[in-house]
Amino acid sequence: MGEFFESIPAVRYEGPKSQNPFAFKFYNRDEVVAGKPMKEHLKFAMAWWHTLCAGGTDMFGSETMDKNFGAAPGTMEHARAKADAGFELMEKLGIEYFCFHDLDLAPEGATLQETQRRLDEIGDYILGKMERYPVKCLWGTANLFGHPRYMNGAASCDSPEIFCYTAAQVKRTLDLTVKLGGSAYVFWGGREGYDTLLNTDMKLEQDNIARLFHMAVDYGRSIGFQGDFLIEPKPKEPMKHQYDFDAATAIGFLRQYGLEGDFKLNLEANHATLAGHTFQHELRTAAINGMLGSIDANEGDMLLGWDTDEFPCDGYAATLCMYEILKSGGLRGGLNFDAKTRRASNTPEDLFHGFILGMDTFALGLRKAAALIEDGRLDEFVQKRYAGYTEGIGKKIVSGQTDLRELAALAQGLEGFRPAPGEREYLEGILNQVLFSGE
Amino acid sequence: MGEFFESIPAVRYEGPKSQNPFAFKFYNRDEVVAGKPMKEHLKFAMAWWHTLCAGGTDMFGSETMDKNFGAAPGTMEHARAKADAGFELMEKLGIEYFCFHDLDLAPEGATLQETQRRLDEIGDYILGKMERYPVKCLWGTANLFGHPRYMNGAASCDSPEIFCYTAAQVKRTLDLTVKLGGSAYVFWGGREGYDTLLNTDMKLEQDNIARLFHMAVDYGRSIGFQGDFLIEPKPKEPMKHQYDFDAATAIGFLRQYGLEGDFKLNLEANHATLAGHTFQHELRTAAINGMLGSIDANEGDMLLGWDTDEFPCDGYAATLCMYEILKSGGLRGGLNFDAKTRRASNTPEDLFHGFILGMDTFALGLRKAAALIEDGRLDEFVQKRYAGYTEGIGKKIVSGQTDLRELAALAQGLEGFRPAPGEREYLEGILNQVLFSGE
Amino acid sequence: MGEFFESIPAVRYEGPKSQNPFAFKFYNRDEVVAGKPMKEHLKFAMAWWHTLCAGGTDMFGSETMDKNFGAAPGTMEHARAKADAGFELMEKLGIEYFCFHDLDLAPEGATLQETQRRLDEIGDYILGKMERYPVKCLWGTANLFGHPRYMNGAASCDSPEIFCYTAAQVKRTLDLTVKLGGSAYVFWGGREGYDTLLNTDMKLEQDNIARLFHMAVDYGRSIGFQGDFLIEPKPKEPMKHQYDFDAATAIGFLRQYGLEGDFKLNLEANHATLAGHTFQHELRTAAINGMLGSIDANEGDMLLGWDTDEFPCDGYAATLCMYEILKSGGLRGGLNFDAKTRRASNTPEDLFHGFILGMDTFALGLRKAAALIEDGRLDEFVQKRYAGYTEGIGKKIVSGQTDLRELAALAQGLEGFRPAPGEREYLEGILNQVLFSGE
Amino acid sequence: MGEFFESIPAVRYEGPKSQNPFAFKFYNRDEVVAGKPMKEHLKFAMAWWHTLCAGGTDMFGSETMDKNFGAAPGTMEHARAKADAGFELMEKLGIEYFCFHDLDLAPEGATLQETQRRLDEIGDYILGKMERYPVKCLWGTANLFGHPRYMNGAASCDSPEIFCYTAAQVKRTLDLTVKLGGSAYVFWGGREGYDTLLNTDMKLEQDNIARLFHMAVDYGRSIGFQGDFLIEPKPKEPMKHQYDFDAATAIGFLRQYGLEGDFKLNLEANHATLAGHTFQHELRTAAINGMLGSIDANEGDMLLGWDTDEFPCDGYAATLCMYEILKSGGLRGGLNFDAKTRRASNTPEDLFHGFILGMDTFALGLRKAAALIEDGRLDEFVQKRYAGYTEGIGKKIVSGQTDLRELAALAQGLEGFRPAPGEREYLEGILNQVLFSGE
Repeated sequence: MGEFFESIPAVRYEGPKSQNPFAFKFYNRDEVVAGKPMKEHLKFAMAWWHTLCAGGTDMFGSETMDKNFGAAPGTMEHARAKADAGFELMEKLGIEYFCFHDLDLAPEGATLQETQRRLDEIGDYILGKMERYPVKCLWGTANLFGHPRYMNGAASCDSPEIFCYTAAQVKRTLDLTVKLGGSAYVFWGGREGYDTLLNTDMKLEQDNIARLFHMAVDYGRSIGFQGDFLIEPKPKEPMKHQYDFDAATAIGFLRQYGLEGDFKLNLEANHATLAGHTFQHELRTAAINGMLGSIDANEGDMLLGWDTDEFPCDGYAATLCMYEILKSGGLRGGLNFDAKTRRASNTPEDLFHGFILGMDTFALGLRKAAALIEDGRLDEFVQKRYAGYTEGIGKKIVSGQTDLRELAALAQGLEGFRPAPGEREYLEGILNQVLFSGE
Repeated sequence: MGEFFESIPAVRYEGPKSQNPFAFKFYNRDEVVAGKPMKEHLKFAMAWWHTLCAGGTDMFGSETMDKNFGAAPGTMEHARAKADAGFELMEKLGIEYFCFHDLDLAPEGATLQETQRRLDEIGDYILGKMERYPVKCLWGTANLFGHPRYMNGAASCDSPEIFCYTAAQVKRTLDLTVKLGGSAYVFWGGREGYDTLLNTDMKLEQDNIARLFHMAVDYGRSIGFQGDFLIEPKPKEPMKHQYDFDAATAIGFLRQYGLEGDFKLNLEANHATLAGHTFQHELRTAAINGMLGSIDANEGDMLLGWDTDEFPCDGYAATLCMYEILKSGGLRGGLNFDAKTRRASNTPEDLFHGFILGMDTFALGLRKAAALIEDGRLDEFVQKRYAGYTEGIGKKIVSGQTDLRELAALAQGLEGFRPAPGEREYLEGILNQVLFSGE
Repeated sequence: MGEFFESIPAVRYEGPKSQNPFAFKFYNRDEVVAGKPMKEHLKFAMAWWHTLCAGGTDMFGSETMDKNFGAAPGTMEHARAKADAGFELMEKLGIEYFCFHDLDLAPEGATLQETQRRLDEIGDYILGKMERYPVKCLWGTANLFGHPRYMNGAASCDSPEIFCYTAAQVKRTLDLTVKLGGSAYVFWGGREGYDTLLNTDMKLEQDNIARLFHMAVDYGRSIGFQGDFLIEPKPKEPMKHQYDFDAATAIGFLRQYGLEGDFKLNLEANHATLAGHTFQHELRTAAINGMLGSIDANEGDMLLGWDTDEFPCDGYAATLCMYEILKSGGLRGGLNFDAKTRRASNTPEDLFHGFILGMDTFALGLRKAAALIEDGRLDEFVQKRYAGYTEGIGKKIVSGQTDLRELAALAQGLEGFRPAPGEREYLEGILNQVLFSGE
Repeated sequence: MGEFFESIPAVRYEGPKSQNPFAFKFYNRDEVVAGKPMKEHLKFAMAWWHTLCAGGTDMFGSETMDKNFGAAPGTMEHARAKADAGFELMEKLGIEYFCFHDLDLAPEGATLQETQRRLDEIGDYILGKMERYPVKCLWGTANLFGHPRYMNGAASCDSPEIFCYTAAQVKRTLDLTVKLGGSAYVFWGGREGYDTLLNTDMKLEQDNIARLFHMAVDYGRSIGFQGDFLIEPKPKEPMKHQYDFDAATAIGFLRQYGLEGDFKLNLEANHATLAGHTFQHELRTAAINGMLGSIDANEGDMLLGWDTDEFPCDGYAATLCMYEILKSGGLRGGLNFDAKTRRASNTPEDLFHGFILGMDTFALGLRKAAALIEDGRLDEFVQKRYAGYTEGIGKKIVSGQTDLRELAALAQGLEGFRPAPGEREYLEGILNQVLFSGE
């Protein structure tokens, strides 16, 4: 294996005062926080696509980054070089998981068979590397959006031929995910939506997506896949409207079609805000529905209306994310950095800065979330707030032992009753105090 | 009954060339369009609150409109005067339905009993007027958001006392809706959401909302109410986040809690766009789920982030709305103008202009929607587009008779297959042609 | 010249009832509307980039459209084939203008000299074609955003080397624009902005942009360019923040740096809405400041937060645009379709449908704008509304002949004065009536 | 003076570990940070309106807070009671400035004379209190938006009568500001904009606003007012579009009308984000134009589209705000809390929590901004980044000693030049390190 990042040292924890740009300030992998080592809370994953494939293009400009790793794009040599570079990066950063689309790993061939051969080959190559590094596959997914054949959707396309092709690609990617020991399989429906309702049969399209999901579950279980299937909600982009708009929509869809037993959600921070929600909202929604699967850890720009996939930097968002995760009993999946350095952050050093930023931000978030729980004031506030529902008429309401008539009778005389204040400012003060009172 | 609008004549249809400001240009109530009189397609309703109560306030300014109708606010005389004015307005405009919140009709008393007495009295008064005018109640709803007691929610409040009070108010408003012959009962959860998750038990709050809904159904059915219960989705405002975010979220909620048999949706155009959807999207979502109940006909401003509740004016939106309704077999409910004239449109004449604008816009929309269907090109396009799913492997997919293995095998050789274009521009050209090729 | 669009006939006006997909329904080029032939109001221009270069990519997918026109991309043969195709398209649609970036016309060479030679060659080729077709150059512009060298800006880059390169490119594109007889030269500062203020000297960057503009004016005038220089405001994308945020910002910038004599604005509909404005607002702002130059005629999606560059389809927007233009005395420049068909509208037929849609929409807008003016009710309303400023104290205020003391004294007794209503709903009713009362 | 907040102790600094809800954790008023006591950097001001008048209403609900302070609303006794409460609050919090609208201080009378008498009286009363407390007036402003007479604007109204009334109100508020020793006078043009361009003469309206500003300057200077006049940009709400959209627009307006000598900007965080900018952007824009006047310190919700006026809580935003202020040499004006507690934070304790949160947040921001400057890495990065403009051709560009020809010649051979990376992720890592590495 080459040394693609030879100028960059292995990144170690040096504490919050270090001036070393290639040191962690907050992420100390074996330090015990909230009952276990940080690395067990924070199953960071490298996303093959952004890390090893993406070149900094945007809609107005061509690549600024060299992701050739010494090989010609489109070759199997390049596929192996990317794997080499990826494992080197993961090793230097202490990242133990990766995520992939089928076509991130090897270039598409002229035929399905050729692509399959290439995926077999690169799969073996990666498996070989996995024997030598402490790296696992977090999840795999099929790229069902990049090729022109998917311009009208994959499972939701108007053409059964495309549905067949979709099925073939899902099948092979499930095979590959199982081969690599992936703990989950993700569907992101980037083209599963519509551009205009003038030409769209929304019901048929949604039904067909569900049909594909059922087939995928049946096939996956038949080949021994025991992990979670995950939907990744996103409201729009590339399509004007995507069917998996947000967590609530996706959960409703899964229940409607009887898929809730096999599926959970892969939530992405940037997708949450595009849908008009905080990431915390999406996490809570999934958690209280038993649907919290895995996380795409990134960050959007609240003033921009598209998916910027920035490396997470916001200490508040990371704290509240980890707070939801700790309170819900921990995350089944991991924290995949579906994130890319900015177009003008185009050097290998920038790539490491991005990962260090992201890992440190979530490490900080974990520390602060644990501190919030240890502090206890937030928990205590919420517990006391709803205590009325643990006794008396509150308990009867909750246990379904009353009705409108009884409650209406009890309301007599309550005209002057006022609920206690929400005290948001007080609680935000606690949040700031815990965040900024020192590490 | 006084003549509050004596300067304004009864509004009649005079055709699209009329220069009379108080004539309909497109709404010809008895003219048959798409198989029945326009008035049967367009069950327009007057919203008691905006029409008879709202004075043009906004967050930065006090009332500009006089809605006293010659009586002192807060009195039963005023309650009757409002009813008189409302019936006069409905008569002059040919509107046959109205919608109300309990507290629109009569001012709240010091006790629940006093409020009940007032509602009984005004209910009788309105019933008396209904005998003399061809006016019906479309739906009723309880105002569970205006009073300070609901500052933390109604059914979702942390205090069981407020839940009791909510129950009392829902009960009395159901009674009143039945008394007035209302064909539906609406829940708009303006305070059923949260300000910050730091102080919120989201699961308990959502469970409690469902508990109230079940009690309301049980009670409603016990007193003979046979109409639909309706949820009205809105994503935010006044709360930062409201639980009934959009149609998909509300439908998921209803199914999760086993309420889908009794509930449908009351969709509002302005709420759709605040949630990031077109109104057409929300209508389609409801329709394909069998959840299309009734409509709050208004319009937001796409550049403003709050609920402006404008009288509908957009011919495109109205056409596409009526297109969805006609295609789904017609609307169970009606078109309630949850709309107010702008703060600076503060005269009685402006109020009539607002209704004329809204009614003409939907009448135009109905005419154009019928013309689109008669034209047939849109329908034909969609039908042909998905025709592959009516035969061969497409039919097998739809009928659940295949699996991933079979489909993957069939995909061999389909690498070069490309779906047909979506032809959005062509279809939009048809839309414009039908809209603007003359009345 | 080849026949790239041989399957598509020349597009003619057939009136609003035609079912021919390749006919104009509203655009009748020689028909006199508002005092002159439609084609003189509507100087439609083909944008070289979207029409001849863009392949339907988005951030999640590769090309769906074939824009090779029978030649290999990156060759001069391809450059000529694009020109051939463009002229064929313009001829069949009756479009008489085109707009270009330098690098739309010919592929960039390895050196500035090589690129220059290629531009010289293709310039000659296009000039040759212009002798045979009634086609003119509306404007030219330099692509200062696509190449990685501009990742930190062009004139606003931190590196003087990039400023030099920018200068070279602007110079050659000015030369080319003059050679092709272009009537204007456009600056769109897609990279002239910032990603984060943490690394940005905003003042130096803005000063440097102004410096480039002054140099461009000096050079342009020195080579005989007599047309307008145009800035094209856009608030964001690709950069997080672009300095030419909107019309007001750009006008302020031009005045601050003494550039208002040579510069005007090229306004784009989709950019207006991204900045939080209607297109009409931007047009009015430019018009009342004497800065209305030219227009990029397209349309965004109000629910999407990025530049979708759709072919214009909204009859309201087109009417209000043409209304502003007619009221301001006509447009100096033209209507450039900075628009692309949707990714799934990927056939040559779709391309024509896009242009037909856009041209018909603006033709409709022109007809309706003229009808609004002829109708006269809007004009009369506004004139009467502000009539108070034509006499008495109003006239003194306007002519600067009074002061706070005099006005304050006059205010005594005006406590009860209320302004007349704005009557928006009435005016919107007129708008709808004129739009939909028949063609 | 009564003890309206008797349950609440004077608030003191107790450091970041204190569990006392009524203690400052970060704001230690006399501690020297960045060269002077914190209180001199942070001239906190109490806003009369939100603090003493606002009752928690929103568009969907009535007051939740009691701001009667033991007196009947609308009386001069109430006016005095509010002043008493305000001074008590300022004293307990150590706030030394206040801001007011004329009609915050005393209720409007039936005539201008009566209002004037009331303002004279309350002005004397407040002056008396100012002799006993170390409290000063930061700025005054006239409420030109609340009364129905301003529904179509104040200076921009279509009626000269309203312009006269506006003039009278501005005159009296200038008088009052001078009387109270205010250091600035603010114009917030909440109604100076439009609802629809269909009824608007934008040019006349903008001209008239400038006319009023000139008269105000003339009058103010004539009565000895030496402070700044300030415009407060806001893009929308209550009007659909407000003329002072953002900092760049307001600066352009001031220059266009020759007002830049007397006017600066009062920037509000929540208004910045509504306009699509970060607060930091608006501060930088003002600073590099010499227009940084004063600040309305609050916070919006990035997922809500209206002015929420929350107490500032975001440590990042406060740090970057104070960073801009320190880098620009300090703020002329102060930090006015144009902020209100949430509707459900309705007790006096909540009010104090709000102020403590806001003051602590900005104190934290000051500490962190000073730490960033002391750290020096950000400054050094920017300085090095643009160093090319301090020598060679860069210097010639900056000093205007070159032209397009020379630069184009120099560009030969620069085809391969690439600018250095922007390193945003590295810089964000520094920001997080400084923010979270301990207090």
